[in-house]
Amino acid sequence: MLQVPRRGFLESEYENRLAKIQKLMFDEGIDAILLTTQVDIEYYTGFKSQFFQSPTRPWFVLIPLNNKPKAIIPVIGESGMRGTWIDDIQTWVSPNPEDEGISLLTISINSLMKKFKCLGIPQGHESTLRMPLSDYNKLLFNLKSIEIKDATNILRYVRYVKSPAEIEKIHYICQVASQGFEDLPSLLKVGESERANCQRFKNHLLTLGVDDFPYLISGSGQGGYGSIIMGPSERILGNGDIFIIDTGCVFDSYFCDFDRNYAFGFASDEAKKAYEVVFKATDAGFEACQVGNTTTDVFNAMNNVMQRGGALGNSVGRLGHGLGLQLTEWPSNTISDNTPLEEGVVLTLEPGMEYLGGKEMVHEENILITKDGPIWLSNRASQELPIL
Amino acid sequence: MLQVPRRGFLESEYENRLAKIQKLMFDEGIDAILLTTQVDIEYYTGFKSQFFQSPTRPWFVLIPLNNKPKAIIPVIGESGMRGTWIDDIQTWVSPNPEDEGISLLTISINSLMKKFKCLGIPQGHESTLRMPLSDYNKLLFNLKSIEIKDATNILRYVRYVKSPAEIEKIHYICQVASQGFEDLPSLLKVGESERANCQRFKNHLLTLGVDDFPYLISGSGQGGYGSIIMGPSERILGNGDIFIIDTGCVFDSYFCDFDRNYAFGFASDEAKKAYEVVFKATDAGFEACQVGNTTTDVFNAMNNVMQRGGALGNSVGRLGHGLGLQLTEWPSNTISDNTPLEEGVVLTLEPGMEYLGGKEMVHEENILITKDGPIWLSNRASQELPIL
Repeated sequence: MLQVPRRGFLESEYENRLAKIQKLMFDEGIDAILLTTQVDIEYYTGFKSQFFQSPTRPWFVLIPLNNKPKAIIPVIGESGMRGTWIDDIQTWVSPNPEDEGISLLTISINSLMKKFKCLGIPQGHESTLRMPLSDYNKLLFNLKSIEIKDATNILRYVRYVKSPAEIEKIHYICQVASQGFEDLPSLLKVGESERANCQRFKNHLLTLGVDDFPYLISGSGQGGYGSIIMGPSERILGNGDIFIIDTGCVFDSYFCDFDRNYAFGFASDEAKKAYEVVFKATDAGFEACQVGNTTTDVFNAMNNVMQRGGALGNSVGRLGHGLGLQLTEWPSNTISDNTPLEEGVVLTLEPGMEYLGGKEMVHEENILITKDGPIWLSNRASQELPIL
Repeated sequence: MLQVPRRGFLESEYENRLAKIQKLMFDEGIDAILLTTQVDIEYYTGFKSQFFQSPTRPWFVLIPLNNKPKAIIPVIGESGMRGTWIDDIQTWVSPNPEDEGISLLTISINSLMKKFKCLGIPQGHESTLRMPLSDYNKLLFNLKSIEIKDATNILRYVRYVKSPAEIEKIHYICQVASQGFEDLPSLLKVGESERANCQRFKNHLLTLGVDDFPYLISGSGQGGYGSIIMGPSERILGNGDIFIIDTGCVFDSYFCDFDRNYAFGFASDEAKKAYEVVFKATDAGFEACQVGNTTTDVFNAMNNVMQRGGALGNSVGRLGHGLGLQLTEWPSNTISDNTPLEEGVVLTLEPGMEYLGGKEMVHEENILITKDGPIWLSNRASQELPIL
């Protein structure tokens, strides 16, 4: 097992992130970017709190063109934010439905509209605004003389390329989850439910050093499963079942995202064949993960193997994606995504195919792109469908 | 321990929820409501998936004035949605940044604009729109002849009053977490970090029957802690520390939300006194939890005890809130909230006060309001600050 990485980051990590986004902001003619989501705020400030589970209070961070981020947050978060590298922290007493930080935010935004009179807000694919629409409309009204630009592309681009410190955390959680999966066969019990088996796996993952498992699903069925995003269910596992667990475990806020498949007692030739096909597709995807190639090259490499291997279809809509502070990040390995691969990019390779009506086989591994080619971050799955 | 409740709900539960919201929709003149969040979608359809962790794909559910909800969702969710009580399921292949379901959604919304030509969308306090702003703007453009109304108030009101089946789940998770806290003193170790202690607690909670712990924070410090929304940190616990764990554990999607405080070795008179004050404030809040009273009566009852008990301040901004499918739900116990309490409402009582500069004491319990008065759902904490 790898050594446990240092938690948190050096201040230089945040300075680098800030320098990158500010350069892009200048190129785009944006004076400041408004951040509202847990992930964006943590990425630029280091503020790490599970309290975003509570929908009551919005949190605002502004990235100025020429200065450190400014936090405009509920008082309840002040002492936590004081523990980060952020200096400029304004607070209001929340909840306050009459004015949930909007007056303060308006003043702060206006004070930053110096060069371009333009505010960036993430509005594009995969983005969400974590504040009530009515408050957003109030804000737009307050800022009616200011141009609003979509900041999605520059925000996602900065997060796309991972730093060595980020890669260390992702590699670590991939390795811990790999160990968990390697130990899993001895924990799985036919005659018990998907849920009971998954709960045992969770206990083991905690013991191995996982912080949390915000995503841990399972699917099962005689001869194959039909979904990879539901469960764990109360279905009792039995001989002849194919069983999948897919998990996004977390270490220090960074995710792994990969799965493992198992058969109990026996497996059909179709299921064994499908497993081999998605395994080989993963290899083909891995080979395509070269700097200069694109996500579409990776898609095509995997898809070609599955087409030749008799794939009937794919409900997932892509064959992997970015990975980091979120279970899934931009970009997607699709037929039209065409994002150029760069050194320091972390991707999942996730070939999946329907091999019989309503039966899917989905495989997933996590990899890092380097200038010398790809590196597996998760330990490679068994080459053949494990039959327990 | 209570018997493990049946998972999921009878179809009649969803029929009741639908009938309630449709009556309110009629009164408000709304033909359909658009839902986009995990919680709203699960509440009306029973679709339960951790896949909302992935930000890539939006999910849409429409509640029509006179019919069962309609799902407009990515293909990856089709088989899962077919397992719910929903019949009308439309899908698109996602990710598809060019048209992420917006064309399908527009057609469906238009087909429902029969009586009032009005679409409800949650826009108010505590609400979020879980779809990209640019897609929302496309949708508004497509629907420009249709009135948009804020549906926040009617949506939150329906969820405010819990059914017996919901209460059973909340009571169960409160009881499991109570057992966990009762066992915790024997698991806590001075000389180890907050995190190591919390991870041991998580292992125990899983063993007791908790599905997950989406919220499990801790705070500690010599003579008191200064935040209740950060952590667990790497800080090593020592004698003279006050330590708090606050947890939102989940059973079958329903949350508990309460905390426990401990001192190691010894505690100052100020800390002991503050504990007694917030304990008594909880009792006073409990007594005020009568049908006909309001959340502000509950606030005042607790706040009066803390004011008399020497509170220097409170950074939380409220003294408890609703509880159910989310860690915190509408309403809030504040000085101006004034929401009338009703039979079947589940609340947290969360008195907290600063008792020395930068030192807070926060206590929390979960209660149910019945026509015969309040009922504790969590087992009452120890009357005096436990010194371990």
